[in-house]
Amino acid sequence: MAAPLRIGIAGYGNLGRGVAAAVGQNPDMELAGIFTRRSPAEITAPTPAVPVLPWDELLEHRDRVDVLILCGGSKADLPEHGPALAAHFTTVDSFDTHAKIPEYFAAVDASARAGGHTAIISVGWDPGMFSLNRLLGEALLPDGATYTFWGKGLSQGHSDAVRRVPGVAGAVQYTVPSDEAIAAVRSGRRPELTTRQKHTRECYVVLEDGADAAAVEQAIVTMPHYFADYDTTVRFISADELARDHATMPHGGFVIRSGSTGSGSSQVVEYRLDLGSNPEFTASVLVAYARAAARLNAGGQVGAKTVLDVPPGLLSPKSAEELRAELL
Amino acid sequence: MAAPLRIGIAGYGNLGRGVAAAVGQNPDMELAGIFTRRSPAEITAPTPAVPVLPWDELLEHRDRVDVLILCGGSKADLPEHGPALAAHFTTVDSFDTHAKIPEYFAAVDASARAGGHTAIISVGWDPGMFSLNRLLGEALLPDGATYTFWGKGLSQGHSDAVRRVPGVAGAVQYTVPSDEAIAAVRSGRRPELTTRQKHTRECYVVLEDGADAAAVEQAIVTMPHYFADYDTTVRFISADELARDHATMPHGGFVIRSGSTGSGSSQVVEYRLDLGSNPEFTASVLVAYARAAARLNAGGQVGAKTVLDVPPGLLSPKSAEELRAELL
Repeated sequence: MAAPLRIGIAGYGNLGRGVAAAVGQNPDMELAGIFTRRSPAEITAPTPAVPVLPWDELLEHRDRVDVLILCGGSKADLPEHGPALAAHFTTVDSFDTHAKIPEYFAAVDASARAGGHTAIISVGWDPGMFSLNRLLGEALLPDGATYTFWGKGLSQGHSDAVRRVPGVAGAVQYTVPSDEAIAAVRSGRRPELTTRQKHTRECYVVLEDGADAAAVEQAIVTMPHYFADYDTTVRFISADELARDHATMPHGGFVIRSGSTGSGSSQVVEYRLDLGSNPEFTASVLVAYARAAARLNAGGQVGAKTVLDVPPGLLSPKSAEELRAELL
Repeated sequence: MAAPLRIGIAGYGNLGRGVAAAVGQNPDMELAGIFTRRSPAEITAPTPAVPVLPWDELLEHRDRVDVLILCGGSKADLPEHGPALAAHFTTVDSFDTHAKIPEYFAAVDASARAGGHTAIISVGWDPGMFSLNRLLGEALLPDGATYTFWGKGLSQGHSDAVRRVPGVAGAVQYTVPSDEAIAAVRSGRRPELTTRQKHTRECYVVLEDGADAAAVEQAIVTMPHYFADYDTTVRFISADELARDHATMPHGGFVIRSGSTGSGSSQVVEYRLDLGSNPEFTASVLVAYARAAARLNAGGQVGAKTVLDVPPGLLSPKSAEELRAELL
């Protein structure tokens, strides 16, 4: 058996912990180290054998890590970490600011090529598995329309927006796809759907003492960009209820391609995720693509890549022969 | 704009006609010729500009065809055509005898390598898109179970088996997945399902004059391999009803991966096809993979490949830059 693939984790929040757990589910991998900008003493490693190391020692450990999984955020962390670390490591990240992907790709690509490394960017489910299915949908059914629905799931960005409303002590926001809209899309009729028709938004809010519930609700539902274009419901709950009922991070969604072929036959392709934990699923995708990144690099394919560039077979621990015999 | 990709069709039944229609939906392609073992005069080309040519002239037209799509059957045609034609053309086929894929791959691979060609085998939806989703399911969620359901759809093999029963003048057979079994799988509970629990079979049968309906029904529902392990219903209809209500070839199905991550979170991934025309969808997949085959060959990647080997971006007429900006 080949030596295990040595995975490093750069950043240890929800995503980093998910990566540590996912590495534990893959017998061909081991955790080489966790790198943190906090004090390593604050961090509990998943097992005592895994070293927790300070961020500024990353480069000293280059030879102990085959693939470094970048677990920072897309807003502030990855635009800096991605290009800097791809110069020294083969990397995988979940950069998810869709509009800035071309610019991020270019920066990581230049850096990875200069260092002879491979960097798979924007891995996860959207961007990631949903991107792959949008691509397959339009390549297989050129005469068609693609629909992406998100949820039901907890949206971090929208939850943060609610928390910034004066009078709000705590909050979560769920994005809920419309059953009616999904049924219309599945029918093959290719409906034109407005933003309001596709999703609703549900907020669970804990008020500060003495806050005016009506004013808070009004501020939320009329908030431009985040809520004004949606039908939004606001429910007021206690701090205990928030902690008890809204602590997990479920998410998911649908990519549906509705098209026609030949004599006008309707063809509908649907990809659906129902995720008990959004960060743990994203982490699982990152770990499978880490295996592919190592193989691409071993094959001399350096530079930045996305899920659209990776032959799917490279994601599996099985050989091409096994995959053909067992899965094709 | 680059010159269009010139597609040849080898074999002109339902699948070949679907390929001709699909090429018409892709502006970066053109139909270079249709090759048939019948008399070319019997065949109506999709447009008068497309030459219909006799099978034994295939090799003379090598320089007019960039990718040859093999549209024969898996039982008798492809085991011969695949290796023979991959020596002279870059090819795509839909070989779907799962148990014989390793041996077919080896024969096509040797032949394609000797000729410097690329041959993507077993393209379609199962094998094909379903294989891709079985692979992604187990690579992303190693702790899990994969379920494949087929239908509701017309099964050619089972329809043929019913037609061979004495007293049957005509018949179609639909494979129907159990809603209950699908609901159980979607719940994340990972049920163990027997063959009988997953699918039922529905036969629509036209009797020959004087045939004994009860004997025909008994012969069908007890037929080993095809029906004995299923709950099968047999309905007797007229020849007119068969022609009127059962002339299309719908199909589809589901690949569902149900798994757990991290702290035991349930994660369910589902890929679903609802196909108005099985051969037209298969043809559309073949045509997208023809684009990829030409690109792989241009990049020097010769030999046999499967959908598991092909970087998804190669299926699209868009450039990698466009895909990153628009779809990722």
